[in-house]
Amino acid sequence: MVNETQHTCSASSSSRSDGGSSSGSESSKDNSRCSTPVLDADRHERLRDKMRRRQDAGDKWFSLEFFPPRTANGAVNLISRFDRMGAGGPLFIDVTWHPAGDPGSDKETSSMIIANTAVNYCGLETILHMTCCNQTKDDITGHLQKAKRLGLKNIMALRGDPAGEEWEEEVDGFDYAVDLVKHIRNEFDDYFDICVAGYPKGHPEAESYEADLRHLKEKVFAGADFIITQLFFRPETFLKFMKDCQAIGITCPIIPGIFPIQGYHSLRQLVKLSKLEVPQEIKDVIEPIKDNDAAIRNYGVELAVSMCRELLDSGMVHGLHFYTLNREVATTEVLKRLGIWKEDPRRPLPWAVSAHPKRRVEDVRPIFWASRPKSYIYRTQEWDDFPNGRWGNSSSPAFGELKDYYLFYLKSKTPREELLKMWGEELTCEESVFEVFTCYITGEPNRNGYKVTCMPWNDDPLATETNLLKDQLEKVNRRGILTINSQPNINGKPSTDPIVGWGPSGGYVFQKAYLEFFTSSEIVTALLKVLKKYELRVNYHIVNVKGQNITNAPDLQPNAVTWGIFPGREIIQPTVVDPVSFLSWKDEAFALWIEQWAKLYEEESPSRMIIQYIHDNYYLVNLVDNDFPLDNCLWQVVEDTFELLN
Amino acid sequence: MVNETQHTCSASSSSRSDGGSSSGSESSKDNSRCSTPVLDADRHERLRDKMRRRQDAGDKWFSLEFFPPRTANGAVNLISRFDRMGAGGPLFIDVTWHPAGDPGSDKETSSMIIANTAVNYCGLETILHMTCCNQTKDDITGHLQKAKRLGLKNIMALRGDPAGEEWEEEVDGFDYAVDLVKHIRNEFDDYFDICVAGYPKGHPEAESYEADLRHLKEKVFAGADFIITQLFFRPETFLKFMKDCQAIGITCPIIPGIFPIQGYHSLRQLVKLSKLEVPQEIKDVIEPIKDNDAAIRNYGVELAVSMCRELLDSGMVHGLHFYTLNREVATTEVLKRLGIWKEDPRRPLPWAVSAHPKRRVEDVRPIFWASRPKSYIYRTQEWDDFPNGRWGNSSSPAFGELKDYYLFYLKSKTPREELLKMWGEELTCEESVFEVFTCYITGEPNRNGYKVTCMPWNDDPLATETNLLKDQLEKVNRRGILTINSQPNINGKPSTDPIVGWGPSGGYVFQKAYLEFFTSSEIVTALLKVLKKYELRVNYHIVNVKGQNITNAPDLQPNAVTWGIFPGREIIQPTVVDPVSFLSWKDEAFALWIEQWAKLYEEESPSRMIIQYIHDNYYLVNLVDNDFPLDNCLWQVVEDTFELLN
Repeated sequence: MVNETQHTCSASSSSRSDGGSSSGSESSKDNSRCSTPVLDADRHERLRDKMRRRQDAGDKWFSLEFFPPRTANGAVNLISRFDRMGAGGPLFIDVTWHPAGDPGSDKETSSMIIANTAVNYCGLETILHMTCCNQTKDDITGHLQKAKRLGLKNIMALRGDPAGEEWEEEVDGFDYAVDLVKHIRNEFDDYFDICVAGYPKGHPEAESYEADLRHLKEKVFAGADFIITQLFFRPETFLKFMKDCQAIGITCPIIPGIFPIQGYHSLRQLVKLSKLEVPQEIKDVIEPIKDNDAAIRNYGVELAVSMCRELLDSGMVHGLHFYTLNREVATTEVLKRLGIWKEDPRRPLPWAVSAHPKRRVEDVRPIFWASRPKSYIYRTQEWDDFPNGRWGNSSSPAFGELKDYYLFYLKSKTPREELLKMWGEELTCEESVFEVFTCYITGEPNRNGYKVTCMPWNDDPLATETNLLKDQLEKVNRRGILTINSQPNINGKPSTDPIVGWGPSGGYVFQKAYLEFFTSSEIVTALLKVLKKYELRVNYHIVNVKGQNITNAPDLQPNAVTWGIFPGREIIQPTVVDPVSFLSWKDEAFALWIEQWAKLYEEESPSRMIIQYIHDNYYLVNLVDNDFPLDNCLWQVVEDTFELLN
Repeated sequence: MVNETQHTCSASSSSRSDGGSSSGSESSKDNSRCSTPVLDADRHERLRDKMRRRQDAGDKWFSLEFFPPRTANGAVNLISRFDRMGAGGPLFIDVTWHPAGDPGSDKETSSMIIANTAVNYCGLETILHMTCCNQTKDDITGHLQKAKRLGLKNIMALRGDPAGEEWEEEVDGFDYAVDLVKHIRNEFDDYFDICVAGYPKGHPEAESYEADLRHLKEKVFAGADFIITQLFFRPETFLKFMKDCQAIGITCPIIPGIFPIQGYHSLRQLVKLSKLEVPQEIKDVIEPIKDNDAAIRNYGVELAVSMCRELLDSGMVHGLHFYTLNREVATTEVLKRLGIWKEDPRRPLPWAVSAHPKRRVEDVRPIFWASRPKSYIYRTQEWDDFPNGRWGNSSSPAFGELKDYYLFYLKSKTPREELLKMWGEELTCEESVFEVFTCYITGEPNRNGYKVTCMPWNDDPLATETNLLKDQLEKVNRRGILTINSQPNINGKPSTDPIVGWGPSGGYVFQKAYLEFFTSSEIVTALLKVLKKYELRVNYHIVNVKGQNITNAPDLQPNAVTWGIFPGREIIQPTVVDPVSFLSWKDEAFALWIEQWAKLYEEESPSRMIIQYIHDNYYLVNLVDNDFPLDNCLWQVVEDTFELLN
């Protein structure tokens, strides 16, 4: 919205007052019998209510603005950034809308799809920008319907820039943001939370500052829930603007837009687009250091921190909106120095919760997708409802099939060349595959000096929790037990534990140890003999790519492997090993050998044939040790297996 | 069925073969998303399937026959007997049908209501007998519809005795049991499991033994699922009968009816009714000792044990059906000596599970009714569904109101005179009430030398588990903290623990400590001050009879206070402290002061006014210590409260 243009009409103000405090009709539907224990009140509120609650509680918060990337690769990077910056606890993020870039399409890089990813796959509360000029009502309605279908609940209603130099009104379109606000309320009632833009210095095209304030009031009275402002350079600019708004009866939240200066060129470009003037005192500092990016960024951070402090100290500001320019460092630095970056990223559940309204009740998942949460959400996107607190033994509707191997959410974010360096330009035997797994576990460089920081089943380096098992994992991987997922047993650690904790404080978390790996049929034969001794203690699922399945799970019942006990609440059991979904996971787990690894090599090449051999002949094994209060016996199981083989 | 008469017609055999192994259409409905983890496979099966499964597994089982009592007092006693004998693990019980006694009515003593109680309130699989002679089709259909409505799933289809000496066919009725079997199948399809009677010596009215076998085959082919036989005195009688049945193509289970001789007169009466002849060798033993009841019973037990052993050893018999004559000792003794009485009454859940098909999914309840499970079932009988694994914060539909104070299931089974001896012929002050509570806890006689074995809120002596808290409970009751419900904290004991264990073996059970009591407003005031120190650790609910309610429970969320972790299963959390249902429980808990205690005394008497005063002015308090791994802090809370008062 940096380059947003202002409407100049004077539509009569609607009678609808600020809807901020009315409770949405949507939320009452959630009061079903099996409602989830509210671990995180946020999950059940709409954005405007969260905002009010935080304000009433005296909490300070922040939000982050991003624009859609130009390339698919850029999209992969941006999504990783969402995950990292999401950990700092933004109240929401917003994604801008650029009519020239086909923003409502299904392209990986469209505003619509980026916002969809942020909400559904990254679990971030998200506002999708939408502009109305040069678009028909039907286009707009189509975009809004699609946004609703994807689970988006918040729209930033903007006019947008006219296409050419000449300003022409569309015959069947909108001229001003206020028209878009009204249209959204007419067509979608109270479904969306609506945000509009405010201009602390007045819009450059407005007749006057006062006229611009009146236009803002019209937008609010037409149904907007809150205001985000254009950037500004002096805190007093914003504070004056806010008082002036209040004076004419605007009572909804007004969030200052903060732009940490990150470089000489981006500042100049922005200023040009926004038609703002940079104050002389800032120019005086920047001009002399204009070729020193680091110096400018440091100055920009200082400036932003001091301005934000002044705003927060005024008592009038509760939240800060950051124009990130899709960059991470400067904004994160400002937020950390302000002390509002969540240093302790407490997890409401031990996996990332999707922000899609339909998925709010979801509080149990099969453990198999622990390292691939986006793939899990993708493969369950057609589900109408979600297991609620209990998975049940017939609760797994069909998982989405693996037809779309190229699919965005299944792809590795690492380029092919790097993958080859990590996983081997040339494989000579199965043992060279064992080595790759072992290097991933140990974090030591492979024989060519490269560290293995990801695997087809794990896009990120080893989790801190898995580090607890490092020595044992190394030992077994060297010998062909190729682990892809594991957790130690936990017998009641505080929910605030930095490594294994999740949920509200004052609780206790528990885990059953489990281990998931690929291994040869020779090892499986020995393993099955050993498992006879552990029949009552260890549950196992063993399956090959053809679906031959060996298990001792009672009926088709799932096994809870993570659970938490909290004050004044029901038990939460967020992860299960489920026999039915294991078979869906199996398809994905085996497919990743081929799609992510084998295909790095030429067809018919020895390297490719080794991976293909493993894919065709190995088994996927899942072991759970049910006796969580005792020492994990799974290492002994593996040890016994190796002994039997010798 | 001892006095059952045999049909003499020769209706053509129906084409319907034995339905014993077909799975009922009913069971598939249970495959909903939130299905309960199968802790006890029995709960989900129909009787004929249970029978087959036990037979296939080589398990021996037994069943018990009772007749409806004549008086309401007799009914209360019989229900207590159901609870005690139910603990021994019968596969089912059956309740006989006496047309003269209005067996289908709503009277407390009718066959229908006794069977209803056995199923719904005692959690026993139950067969209701039904006879057809002298009844119209409409009458019969009405009875069957009512049985179905009450959750009864099994019918023993009998002809019954003709009303007078002359045998007359009803115009619009049934003449023979086979007609009733056909009628049930026609009108109710496969809903009911149907049992029919077999006569090892042939029915006394049958033309011949062979003709009688053919009639039996007709009943089976008309849709009966299994056969229970008339009593007999020699094992070879039954074994021959069984072989003869098999020879003519009867393949369904045939269960021998066992009659342990319990006294001279009951034997003579039975023999007269059943037109059986007592073998000479038995007469020779019994005649000389006919006035020594104990000797006859001992002999009867011996005889039954030896006959049952022979039957079981034959390999042809898997279950034994006992004619108890509503008595407990002889049958229990036989079963214990045979080793098929369940010595270890393992609980599938920490409360008695109702056998009503609608309530199968029930696996969580508010803790408040722990000592009054029949009242809980009564007050929730109108619920269409039951919380499944999770109570949720809006899951409590209206509880049945307390209009029917006289209600059977709320009544004490102890007579007024005994209650007065226990609770005091005359109360002089509140402290004399404290004394009653204290005596109940300690088990020591009161000042008049009587033990207090029940209280209005607890129909039975203190539970073994509560005994763990005895010393502390005694101390606080003496000082006016009048406890009615409590449990210690448990941090992972084996599920097989004899005191606190429940569920399948190999699991671990957990509890949060809680304490529920009545106390004066003076103590409540001090308690609330003390609780401030425990704000994060202890959840409290404090309410008086007018509904003034003080709590720190987050929103209206329930607090799980009992849960279990089992191999290969999801977490089970069978009891919760629920803020919403607490207010329904409050009505019942306060009402019991008046209905059970105050009303023992004359109106306006000082004793009655003391109880009335407590009812009007005391508070009901529930405390939960959330920190289950630490020492229970609730005693310290009470201690601190007393200190503050001094």
